[in-house]
Amino acid sequence: MSMKKMGAAAKAAARAMSMASTDQKNAVLKEMVSMISQHARQVLDANKEDINEAEASGLDSAMIDRLSLQGRLESILKAVESVITLPDPVGERFDRKVYNHLEIEKCRTPIGVLGVIYESRPDVTIDVTALALKSGNCAILRGGSETLRTNGVLVDAIQKALAKVALPAAAIQLVKSPDRIYVRKLLRLHDSVDLIIPRGGAALHRFCRENSTIPVITGGIGVCHLFVDKTADLERSLKVIHNAKTQRPTVCNALDTVLVHEAVAEAFVVKAIDLLRKSGVSFRLDPMAWKIAEQAGKTDNCLQAQPVDWETEWLSLVLGIRVVKDLAEAIEHIAKYSTGHSDGILTQDKSHAERFVREVDSAAVYVNASTRFTDGGQLGLGAEVAISTQKLHARGPMGLCELTSYKWVVHGDYSVR
Amino acid sequence: MSMKKMGAAAKAAARAMSMASTDQKNAVLKEMVSMISQHARQVLDANKEDINEAEASGLDSAMIDRLSLQGRLESILKAVESVITLPDPVGERFDRKVYNHLEIEKCRTPIGVLGVIYESRPDVTIDVTALALKSGNCAILRGGSETLRTNGVLVDAIQKALAKVALPAAAIQLVKSPDRIYVRKLLRLHDSVDLIIPRGGAALHRFCRENSTIPVITGGIGVCHLFVDKTADLERSLKVIHNAKTQRPTVCNALDTVLVHEAVAEAFVVKAIDLLRKSGVSFRLDPMAWKIAEQAGKTDNCLQAQPVDWETEWLSLVLGIRVVKDLAEAIEHIAKYSTGHSDGILTQDKSHAERFVREVDSAAVYVNASTRFTDGGQLGLGAEVAISTQKLHARGPMGLCELTSYKWVVHGDYSVR
Repeated sequence: MSMKKMGAAAKAAARAMSMASTDQKNAVLKEMVSMISQHARQVLDANKEDINEAEASGLDSAMIDRLSLQGRLESILKAVESVITLPDPVGERFDRKVYNHLEIEKCRTPIGVLGVIYESRPDVTIDVTALALKSGNCAILRGGSETLRTNGVLVDAIQKALAKVALPAAAIQLVKSPDRIYVRKLLRLHDSVDLIIPRGGAALHRFCRENSTIPVITGGIGVCHLFVDKTADLERSLKVIHNAKTQRPTVCNALDTVLVHEAVAEAFVVKAIDLLRKSGVSFRLDPMAWKIAEQAGKTDNCLQAQPVDWETEWLSLVLGIRVVKDLAEAIEHIAKYSTGHSDGILTQDKSHAERFVREVDSAAVYVNASTRFTDGGQLGLGAEVAISTQKLHARGPMGLCELTSYKWVVHGDYSVR
Repeated sequence: MSMKKMGAAAKAAARAMSMASTDQKNAVLKEMVSMISQHARQVLDANKEDINEAEASGLDSAMIDRLSLQGRLESILKAVESVITLPDPVGERFDRKVYNHLEIEKCRTPIGVLGVIYESRPDVTIDVTALALKSGNCAILRGGSETLRTNGVLVDAIQKALAKVALPAAAIQLVKSPDRIYVRKLLRLHDSVDLIIPRGGAALHRFCRENSTIPVITGGIGVCHLFVDKTADLERSLKVIHNAKTQRPTVCNALDTVLVHEAVAEAFVVKAIDLLRKSGVSFRLDPMAWKIAEQAGKTDNCLQAQPVDWETEWLSLVLGIRVVKDLAEAIEHIAKYSTGHSDGILTQDKSHAERFVREVDSAAVYVNASTRFTDGGQLGLGAEVAISTQKLHARGPMGLCELTSYKWVVHGDYSVR
């Protein structure tokens, strides 16, 4: 099918989806779980074929890990079940008022048609489908060419589930050609697609922004900071930093740079290196931190930081440490190098915490907590479709509510202006 | 100055503006009113020169009317004074909760830097500046080449006002070259500009969407409908239709098409023609309405509607009338032809009103009211920077709050995941 036809089919399906009841939407998610469970053998076989081909073509092991559903299908379907339990945002009325002799309110509506472009992970197919359908949206999915077989089987099952509850199968469609030209075409379907959500690295986000005529949610890139203030509880701060750096180093909310107040730098730098190197962390140190490490004979796993290091999202067990002379210098560093994802302060000083919160403009700003909490599940959204670091529409984790828009509903009495 | 430098200056100014207090922001608006008042002679002289040149170059009288500030300056400055009285949305905390042992809330922030592209109307320079500054944002303005002198004098006064209250003059900048290449450059300044707001016709919106790497608020194009249901109070409905069509026919929320239930078509069509033609309205009639008009001998100001008429935003004293067999057909017509701006139903039937509100997906949906109410001032926002008909970020009139984003603020107790 041409992309234009897919777009038109999605747009038509979007009208039906926008009017579907909560019961109907929950029913399709239940059917989807049961269909995929019933076809688990086919899903996993197709996935195995995808993996075999990826291995043969020399894809690296991290990519292959992201590609694999083996042993994971059940837990992925659990996520769908949790979406069933979440409240349906569509139809919610808010901002009610009487003004100008009119009864004015807003009513939450689905956005319409989402274009989702992602790589490797076939679990995204299931997650995005569950969130899109529950919020009354449709989606055109364009997974990576390396997961075509897996995604094909999954979307077949999803479309059967839709048909079974009398919702249009075109609510969820998959671009079945690996040709990149279809990504370009999807990005220009502004007559039928309302929002583009890229899930992948910086290059994919840039490509979408530069080639899309549809609004793009950019995000998912995190150069994340924690500032250890002079009043911070150092022992407890070390635990937070250890968690933020090592609990899952390959994700966007993992810590990249620690800024430490010079008053506590000497005690902190040595302890941080001692603790974190046990978990395999290596370090990039600014001249001051390097001096401290050198005097303590702890430079084994350390390099002297280069300017580019401060703007690097490590996605691995590497941590930058820089000594700053005060809170203001920490905030300046963050303003210069943060990607606006997740940044925090560790402090006992309430006024410093307040200033940090006021002046640091990131999607999530933390006081005495790990950056790893920037996640839909952790922050109470139940699930997430993406983490936005741009400022339009939604910022931070995007769950069901962030997949909605609103309309103004105005009741008058044959009112004229 | 190069566009890149303007962008960098705006981005730097945006940090200062985001931290400005409400008092400071109100002070700059007051200064702005007094500066422009003091320089009223220069403003009006520059405006006269712009008008003279526009007349010499043969610009049409509607454009010249939009260009003129003569006799209007005082009322435009009144709008700035009303923005001073509006509450400052920045810093507002909302969606508070305790979850996962964390204190979680959202804090409203400015968006950052707005790129505003508009034609003719120099009053937009003043309106946008007032709303942008009050909401802690910066703006790069690109007015039409026909208003360069007027805008130059206005922005000079605005920058003096900024300097006087120690806010960065670069918070409001004007692109001073008429060369269209600078519009293209502005649309690609995604490193420093957060949002593009076009104010103009469909061609400008399309140009922005197709050439921008920054999110664009599209809107301002309204093919607007009112459906006269069989239970509607016909006399009162006629007054609403008269208001929606004739009160200001050149704007986007003016009525374009009336759909009328066949049960009341005969009575309605003749009365509507009789009433509206007194105000200079001419008509485009579907075959059924034409037949009714013909039988009554009322086709003087009427043409038989062509398919393209239903998708035309008239912006003038022309009205389409189509007879439909029921509510469902009215909703279908609107789904096909509406631009999603403002559509309404006139009815005494509550269940029809509810169905119309549920199924019509436009920025503003009316029950028994004129479409002309889709306006920031009319709906209680105090003022508006644009009317969005896209579904991302904000829909309908955009006031101060719609010029903000938010950040997640999370307080923990050295919390780890």
